Amino acid sequence: MKAWEKYLETHRDEALADMVAFLRIPSISSPRENTADVQAAAEWTAARMRRAGIEHVQVMATGGHPAVYGDWLHAGGKPTVLIYGHFDVQPADPLELWTSPPFEPEVRDGRVYARGAGDDKGNMLIPILVAEAFLKTGGELPINLKFIFEGQEEIGSPEFVGFIAEQKALLAADLAISADGSQLAEDQPILLVGFKGLIPLQIDVYGARSDLHSGVYGGAIANPIHALVRILDSMRSPDGKVTVDGFYDDVVDLTEEDRRQISDVPFDEAHYLADLGVDAAFGEPGYTTMERAWARPTLELNGIWGGFQGEGVKTVLPKEAHAKITCRLVANQEPHRIYHLIAEHVARVAPAGVRVQTTQLPGYAYPYLMPVDHPGNRVVGSVLTDLYGNSPFYVRMGGSVGPLMSFLRELGIYTVTLAFALEDERHHAPDEFLRLARFEKGKLAFGRVWEKISDEGL
Amino acid sequence: MKAWEKYLETHRDEALADMVAFLRIPSISSPRENTADVQAAAEWTAARMRRAGIEHVQVMATGGHPAVYGDWLHAGGKPTVLIYGHFDVQPADPLELWTSPPFEPEVRDGRVYARGAGDDKGNMLIPILVAEAFLKTGGELPINLKFIFEGQEEIGSPEFVGFIAEQKALLAADLAISADGSQLAEDQPILLVGFKGLIPLQIDVYGARSDLHSGVYGGAIANPIHALVRILDSMRSPDGKVTVDGFYDDVVDLTEEDRRQISDVPFDEAHYLADLGVDAAFGEPGYTTMERAWARPTLELNGIWGGFQGEGVKTVLPKEAHAKITCRLVANQEPHRIYHLIAEHVARVAPAGVRVQTTQLPGYAYPYLMPVDHPGNRVVGSVLTDLYGNSPFYVRMGGSVGPLMSFLRELGIYTVTLAFALEDERHHAPDEFLRLARFEKGKLAFGRVWEKISDEGL
Repeated sequence: MKAWEKYLETHRDEALADMVAFLRIPSISSPRENTADVQAAAEWTAARMRRAGIEHVQVMATGGHPAVYGDWLHAGGKPTVLIYGHFDVQPADPLELWTSPPFEPEVRDGRVYARGAGDDKGNMLIPILVAEAFLKTGGELPINLKFIFEGQEEIGSPEFVGFIAEQKALLAADLAISADGSQLAEDQPILLVGFKGLIPLQIDVYGARSDLHSGVYGGAIANPIHALVRILDSMRSPDGKVTVDGFYDDVVDLTEEDRRQISDVPFDEAHYLADLGVDAAFGEPGYTTMERAWARPTLELNGIWGGFQGEGVKTVLPKEAHAKITCRLVANQEPHRIYHLIAEHVARVAPAGVRVQTTQLPGYAYPYLMPVDHPGNRVVGSVLTDLYGNSPFYVRMGGSVGPLMSFLRELGIYTVTLAFALEDERHHAPDEFLRLARFEKGKLAFGRVWEKISDEGL
Repeated sequence: MKAWEKYLETHRDEALADMVAFLRIPSISSPRENTADVQAAAEWTAARMRRAGIEHVQVMATGGHPAVYGDWLHAGGKPTVLIYGHFDVQPADPLELWTSPPFEPEVRDGRVYARGAGDDKGNMLIPILVAEAFLKTGGELPINLKFIFEGQEEIGSPEFVGFIAEQKALLAADLAISADGSQLAEDQPILLVGFKGLIPLQIDVYGARSDLHSGVYGGAIANPIHALVRILDSMRSPDGKVTVDGFYDDVVDLTEEDRRQISDVPFDEAHYLADLGVDAAFGEPGYTTMERAWARPTLELNGIWGGFQGEGVKTVLPKEAHAKITCRLVANQEPHRIYHLIAEHVARVAPAGVRVQTTQLPGYAYPYLMPVDHPGNRVVGSVLTDLYGNSPFYVRMGGSVGPLMSFLRELGIYTVTLAFALEDERHHAPDEFLRLARFEKGKLAFGRVWEKISDEGL
C-alpha cells in the first residue's frame, strides 16, 4: 500500500466527519433565501482546500453564486489537470418525504443520507482529500492540478459559464476531470462521453385582473388554467413526441453503432420500472427506453400551479396559471434556438381571452459529446478497469453539466467524468444518499488516475 | 316613517359595528384549521339573534359545520317564512392582493372591505336587524319567521342538505327567503329564478414513487403533469365546449322566450370585459356571454398543482400532479351522473405509465328553477319596484345555492332571493366589499316584504 493510500485509510473517519459537516450547509442555489448558505459552502470548501495543502485558494465572484479556485503547480514537465465539481445542491422539498432531515446527515447501513450526498458534495470532496494525502505524505502531487468548484450547477451555471470564458488563463489545462456524475453499478464503471444540453423556461398565463367566482364568470370568460393546459398539451403528442415545429431539426440521429453501444449496456427494464414504482415506460416512439433517456431530446414539465391548491373546494376562476419547463438537448441542438421555437409555438397556440408570456429562465447548457478514443478516456478507463474488475461502458447521460461544454469551447479541453455516485441514490429527490464504499473507491481512483497521467502523459 | 324604520335609522352605527365584529371572525369553511372560527361565527350569530328578541335560538350540529336556528311564531293566522343565509366565507388567499387584510374590516368610500362583506355576512345580518327593529318597537313581527343560517355554503353545504331533510318539521314554512345573492345594479333589482347546480371533483395523477431527476428519467417514463394536462385538455374543445360524452344530454335547451328574457337584461359587454381586465369573452360557441354565464353548464378548473413552484429552476420530474374541477349544472342535469361521466372520461383518456384517480369532493347542488309567476316573486317584486323605482328583471345566476333545491325537495317550498350585494363586489376574490347604501336599502326591503306578506298573504 502506498503512503497516500495508507494516509487515506487512517484518516477515513475524519474524511466522513468532513463530508457530514459539508452536507450540513443548506447550499441550495435556486431560491434567493439560501444565498448566504451557498457562500458558506464556498468558504467551507476553500478552508478545506487550504488545510489539504492546495495553494492559491480563493473564493471568486462570478456575478452569481461564487466559485472556489486553488492549484498546485510544482510538477515540472507533467500535464496539468483541471478538477471540477459543485458545492451547491437542489432544493429539498417536499421535506415531509425525507426519512431524516435533508441537512442533518445520517449514516444508515453504510450510506450517508443528506441532500447533496452524491450530487455533488461527497464526490467533489474526494479529489481534495486525495490531494491532501499526497501532499501530507510525499510533499508533492504526481501532476499539476487546478481545482475549480462552482455554486450554481443545479441552476444551470448561469454566471459560471461566463466566468470560465473570463478566466481562460487561470483555468488553462490539458484535460478536465469532473467529479460530478455517477457509475452504472457497484461493480461496473462507465466513461461518460455525452451529456444533454438544457434550456429552462416558464410560461405565465394571465386572465382577469383578480380571482373570480367560478359560478358567476365560469363559461363567460377564459380560465387561465384551461388556457395553460391547452398550450402545454399542444407541445407533445399523446405518445410523448415533442410537437414544437423544428424541435428535432438539428438532432444528430443515432447511428446503428450508437444504438448497439447503448444496447450493450446491461439494462433490466422490469427492475428499473419496479424500482421507480411505475407500470410502464413512456416516451417518444421508435426508441428504446435508454435511447430516450440518454440520447434523445426531451421537453418535461417541472412544475405547474394556479388557483386553489388547499383541502376541499374553492369555486374560483383564477386570475393566472404558471408552468416551468426544461428541455434536455442533444447534439447539435442550440439552446437559444430551441427556446425561441417554443416561445413562437406558445404565442401561436395561445387561446383568446388570456395574455400569455414565455420567459427563458437562468441556466442553459449546450449538449456535449466526447470522442470515445480520447487519451483521457484511455487513462481513466484503464484505472477503472483495474479497480472494478470490469472495463467501463462508454455511455451518455440525460443530465446536463453545462461547464463541460464551456471547458471545450473556452479552454479547448475535453472532460473525463470521474465520480462515484450510483443512479439509484435519489439525486434531486427525497432521501438522497451516497454509499460510503463508493466514497472510498473514489479516493483510490483519483490517486491512481493522477499517477497514471504522470507516468504515461496525455 | 314607521317605528321599525326609525329604529333602524337610529341604530345604524350599531348595526355597522355589529357587521364589522361579525366580519372579523375568519369563518372559512374550506380548510380544517378554521373549524373553530366557523363555530365562533355560529355562536356570534346565535347571540345576535337572541339579542334581537328571536326565540328558540340554538346552534345545531349538522355533522359538519353547525347551523343556527331561531324563530318567532306568534303571528296567528299569518304565513310562515323561512329566512336563509350563511355565516361561512371563502378562503382569503392570495392575501398579498388585499388592500386591507381580509379579516380586519375597513370602511372606505361608503364600502366595507372584508372577506364575507357581501357573501354573505352583510346580507344575512339584515333580517336579524329588521326583526329586532319590529320586536323592540312594536313587540311583534308582522308574520311568523323561522331563521336558518348555515356554516358550509361555500363548500357546497355537504351536511346541511341532510340536515334540512332531517329537520322537516322544524323548518316547515310557506316560503323561503334567501339572504344570499345580489342585485343587478344600484337602481336595478332582480328576482332570481334559476341557480346552477354544482359538482366538485379532484383528479390526482401519480407516477414514480418519488420525485426524480428530469435529466436522468425525462423522456423515459411518464411525467404526471403531462398526463394531467392531457386529461384536462381532453375535457373541453379549443373553443370552450365540454367534450365529456353525455355532459349535455339532460340539459333543457333555452327557448326563444328564455333567450329573449336574458337579452332584455341590460348588459354592456365592453364594460364588463374592461372591468375584468380581459380583451375578449370566451366560451361555448352558439351562445351569448350572459347565456353562457347564466344558463349553460360549465366545467372549470379551480386549481392545479404539481412539481416545483418556487423561484428559478428545479430540474425535477415530479411524482404527482393534481387538479380541482367544479362543474356548474343547469336543469335537468343530475350532479352524480355528471360526476360519473367525468370519472369515466378520465379513466378512458388516462395515458399509460401513470395511476389516475378521480374523487368527488364534498358539496354538490342540484340546479334550481322557479316559476316566474310564483306568489313570492309577486310580493317581493312589488316591494323592490317601489324601493328601486324600476321593476325587477327575472334572471338566472351562474352560482349555486344548494339548500334552495333542498327546501324545494324536502320542505316543498320555493325560495325568493332577497339580497343586496352587487356583482362587482369581488365575491370569492381579494378586496371583497359591500356598499353600505345597499345594506340600508336591504333593511327597508326585508321589513316591507314581511308587512306585504302579512297584508296580502301568499
